[in-house]
Amino acid sequence: MENSIFELQYALDTFYFLVCGALVMWMAAGFAMLEAGLVRSKNTTEILTKNVALFAISCTMYLVCGYAIMYNGSAEMFFLDGIMGDGVAGADEPAGYAPSADFFFQVVFVATAMSIVSGAVAERMKLWAFLAFAVVMTGVIYPMEGSWTWGGNAVFGMYTLADLGFLDFAGSGIVHMAGASAALAGVLLLGARKGKYGKNGEVNAIPGANLPMATLGTFILWMGWFGFNGGSVLATASVESANAVAIVFLNTNAAAAGGLIAALVVARILFGKADLTMSLNGALAGLVAITAGPDTPTPLQATLFGALGGVLVVFSILTLDKLKIDDPVGAISVHGVVGLLGLLLVPVTNDGSSFSGQLIGAATIFVWVFVSSLIVWGIIKAVMGIRVTAEEEFNGVDIAECGMEAYPEFTNK
Amino acid sequence: MENSIFELQYALDTFYFLVCGALVMWMAAGFAMLEAGLVRSKNTTEILTKNVALFAISCTMYLVCGYAIMYNGSAEMFFLDGIMGDGVAGADEPAGYAPSADFFFQVVFVATAMSIVSGAVAERMKLWAFLAFAVVMTGVIYPMEGSWTWGGNAVFGMYTLADLGFLDFAGSGIVHMAGASAALAGVLLLGARKGKYGKNGEVNAIPGANLPMATLGTFILWMGWFGFNGGSVLATASVESANAVAIVFLNTNAAAAGGLIAALVVARILFGKADLTMSLNGALAGLVAITAGPDTPTPLQATLFGALGGVLVVFSILTLDKLKIDDPVGAISVHGVVGLLGLLLVPVTNDGSSFSGQLIGAATIFVWVFVSSLIVWGIIKAVMGIRVTAEEEFNGVDIAECGMEAYPEFTNK
Amino acid sequence: MENSIFELQYALDTFYFLVCGALVMWMAAGFAMLEAGLVRSKNTTEILTKNVALFAISCTMYLVCGYAIMYNGSAEMFFLDGIMGDGVAGADEPAGYAPSADFFFQVVFVATAMSIVSGAVAERMKLWAFLAFAVVMTGVIYPMEGSWTWGGNAVFGMYTLADLGFLDFAGSGIVHMAGASAALAGVLLLGARKGKYGKNGEVNAIPGANLPMATLGTFILWMGWFGFNGGSVLATASVESANAVAIVFLNTNAAAAGGLIAALVVARILFGKADLTMSLNGALAGLVAITAGPDTPTPLQATLFGALGGVLVVFSILTLDKLKIDDPVGAISVHGVVGLLGLLLVPVTNDGSSFSGQLIGAATIFVWVFVSSLIVWGIIKAVMGIRVTAEEEFNGVDIAECGMEAYPEFTNK
Repeated sequence: MENSIFELQYALDTFYFLVCGALVMWMAAGFAMLEAGLVRSKNTTEILTKNVALFAISCTMYLVCGYAIMYNGSAEMFFLDGIMGDGVAGADEPAGYAPSADFFFQVVFVATAMSIVSGAVAERMKLWAFLAFAVVMTGVIYPMEGSWTWGGNAVFGMYTLADLGFLDFAGSGIVHMAGASAALAGVLLLGARKGKYGKNGEVNAIPGANLPMATLGTFILWMGWFGFNGGSVLATASVESANAVAIVFLNTNAAAAGGLIAALVVARILFGKADLTMSLNGALAGLVAITAGPDTPTPLQATLFGALGGVLVVFSILTLDKLKIDDPVGAISVHGVVGLLGLLLVPVTNDGSSFSGQLIGAATIFVWVFVSSLIVWGIIKAVMGIRVTAEEEFNGVDIAECGMEAYPEFTNK
Repeated sequence: MENSIFELQYALDTFYFLVCGALVMWMAAGFAMLEAGLVRSKNTTEILTKNVALFAISCTMYLVCGYAIMYNGSAEMFFLDGIMGDGVAGADEPAGYAPSADFFFQVVFVATAMSIVSGAVAERMKLWAFLAFAVVMTGVIYPMEGSWTWGGNAVFGMYTLADLGFLDFAGSGIVHMAGASAALAGVLLLGARKGKYGKNGEVNAIPGANLPMATLGTFILWMGWFGFNGGSVLATASVESANAVAIVFLNTNAAAAGGLIAALVVARILFGKADLTMSLNGALAGLVAITAGPDTPTPLQATLFGALGGVLVVFSILTLDKLKIDDPVGAISVHGVVGLLGLLLVPVTNDGSSFSGQLIGAATIFVWVFVSSLIVWGIIKAVMGIRVTAEEEFNGVDIAECGMEAYPEFTNK
Repeated sequence: MENSIFELQYALDTFYFLVCGALVMWMAAGFAMLEAGLVRSKNTTEILTKNVALFAISCTMYLVCGYAIMYNGSAEMFFLDGIMGDGVAGADEPAGYAPSADFFFQVVFVATAMSIVSGAVAERMKLWAFLAFAVVMTGVIYPMEGSWTWGGNAVFGMYTLADLGFLDFAGSGIVHMAGASAALAGVLLLGARKGKYGKNGEVNAIPGANLPMATLGTFILWMGWFGFNGGSVLATASVESANAVAIVFLNTNAAAAGGLIAALVVARILFGKADLTMSLNGALAGLVAITAGPDTPTPLQATLFGALGGVLVVFSILTLDKLKIDDPVGAISVHGVVGLLGLLLVPVTNDGSSFSGQLIGAATIFVWVFVSSLIVWGIIKAVMGIRVTAEEEFNGVDIAECGMEAYPEFTNK
């Protein structure tokens, strides 16, 4: 009888991981649609190709070595050898769910981190250079960083980041800021798109070609985020964990709503219009802001934290443009700047973390990911180049890189 | 041991609510895509903005006061204070699932009701007037109506609607007809789009700009409806409730299929063509028709009920056009007229309701929502106006309201 | 107490079926978007109409007679009479889940098989001829074939296919190759699109009109496939079955990733470009390849099996074009050729099957579905014709069949 109750708990927790993982996998579609909607039509096929390919590369590299680096390090986990058994016997502490469900849930997080990069370098980076970076990012850079945080490995001598008061529930820093840090390194080496910044300091808007697609992408991300944050409770088969998962779903939704409304209002004040793309970025910023700690705020706090993210993202996007850091979809602001905000908000409602710990953790993640990415981007730049030619950029990278247009019958250009 | 079985039941029911709630949240994307596909390209950014903003407003207003009005009324539920505990102890009757999961499931219903409105008033209503209405609708009008039905509060002296034989399982009336009633009030004050109705009584078709988007929206709604109806069983962790949830999924799907086929055939007979938009509305009508009672019909009955909805929606759309009630996406027909049909079909298979009870309930919902909406729309009209200028309408509301086009590179106009 | 544990197992397995079924239903949207993205804009409304209508017809015909033919044969299951009870008592062997959940999960498979057909015959087949075929395919042809395989009925005298060593876990053959076989029969009778094959043997590429839509469709299918394969374990409420479901999710994802990467690389070598549509077909091929046996390979094997599918699909598409078999979306290659590969890969990791058994099973499915389809397509051709006129094909079938354009404001033609 005991056994049966254990079996049901094991089965429910496993199923919960799989459902949440499927929702996070769905976020890959969200990023693809968001980015495809926000670039110009001549660069759409290429951004779609990058998005589907980076998802496949993430899944494969994390299977080959990433998971072993991040969580285990033992040789038997390379290629996931030894994952086919169950989680009951043989491990140091008996797991309460299938090990392969754990991998499935973790692997889709890697893809999320990588998806953040593709948007920031859109419309001018070489496709194969990007994919080469994706191999290293998802096979090594992210897993190393993950090993110091969720993996529990010591990073400073004998201290883990958790010992120092660092807490990142579902990855505002570990996933989102990490992706944005890699993106920033790439953007700095890559430079801005032609025509984005004028000689007299003016910033030229380059409108996205398909806003329904971008809106759909945002809704997909919003939905998938329930799995992203909700699954990060790591268990649901008890009253305590079920309550935690439920409050995480509720707070995740509340923060997205708060972020959207805040960005809508701020943009209305600044620009006099109801700015759809700012609103979408506001919702995403709300989601990123709550991700580091969605379990402890009250719903009202979650709404306000999301709103803070929504305000911050508008000013961050404007500031980056002043700095001539060209990020076509606002990914560095949404995931990086607001990811940091998310980390810093955790101690407000959670005693298990401290501001100093959050700052140390954020600095560790940023320095590691930014510097290692800069080196990898630099090597790729030296070996094969990372930017398409000026002519290819002018004509659109779709023809040059993919040999096909995304909308061959529609565009007038 | 007892405790453990209770814990698992609690966890499974909570997870079921969350999964169903995520599916209903997904319906917001469905409405956005459906409406974005059925309007002209020059009004697409604006309808997208309305859809994302109304979802955020719904979530926030229901959190602030709607949930407290509808289900509780006690001061501690404003802002959801007191929702963070578990549902086991302290309540009058111990709940079998997390309170925050209940909120999450309920809040997405509010957004559904509000989403219905945006389609009907598309292409001519001021964006901020619409959002102002959304605040009142989701914070007060819907919660009041909900308190008399699902909330169980007495509306006529000491009688509740349930006492009078009213039964609305998942909201054909409470959600769908309510949304359509608010929409109808808005449309009557707003008037038809320029050019829709000619001087000689002719009705001019105004084709939607993106039918794949509209089709996607319908598929999203179809999928999300499994959560909408399936979650309304309110429990799944027993043989009896699991069977009920399963039959609800099956019947919901069957009704949608029946509605689609019926509308396809009727439109073929009337117009000589396979009318895609009528077919989509037929599927949605089938879904609305079954929503008031998806648990008691046999699958064959569910198919036929859906088919009835599919037939009715075609004639309703034609009739509304004859009455010069301009509803660009057919929302009043799909959700209002067929919502009423759904209520009236319940007593056919469920002894727990009566025709008189259904009529009283339908009248109560309609009168309350329609009249209060008319007043609110009227106030908004007096204060800030509800209709864009003729010039803005001619040029498209995207530029006027949002300052950006949805498809800047595609259109020839 | 025993009873309570049984109830929870019953409830969890039922919920699992419903969630997986909803994901498979979602694949209908995936096929619709994939096909709508890969045809020309002038044929888009019609392919959307076919896709929504075939889903509705599949659900209705399987409800009317298909399920009874495939699994039961007793008169009481026509129209699903008798499905409203629970699965505990009264049956020969007590089921562990709601019978209506089983139907819901099975019915969406029928729609998948039928969706495969619509893509292959796109841009030239009469809409109502296609729907007439859908009635027979989903009501009789597929259910008969299914009765010999998953239904367990003997097909050769007293032997079932399972007796002969045939094993198809989730339907590489039973669903995917079956759909492709019906499609092939239709394509052979229908002929190629005008202009596809030149007089001097050249193959003219006919680009799809909306690649973001096609990419979205692929992501939807990828996500839905977790339900397709994961649900085919048929139980999740024990350690053993939970582990099986988890490994199936993991392997399904790995195979899709492997297929995508392989097709991307092969197309790069052959054509010198990063071919998005080949990559998408590669992912789908990886999914089809693993579907016959996703439970026994290691994750690395699953990746390689998927990669094999991705390589094969590129060469298959090129070969079919050489044979002048015109399949606008590559459905016959993805689902037929790679479906066969999937069947043949099962014995590599699963002793419960044999190569001879797989070949016999594949031949049985192909011969039955291809020949019966050829007869039905032939009858339809004789009675009402299956191909639109040359003029209708030139102008696009949207106007002729549906009376409305998919993108009335966008196209320049």
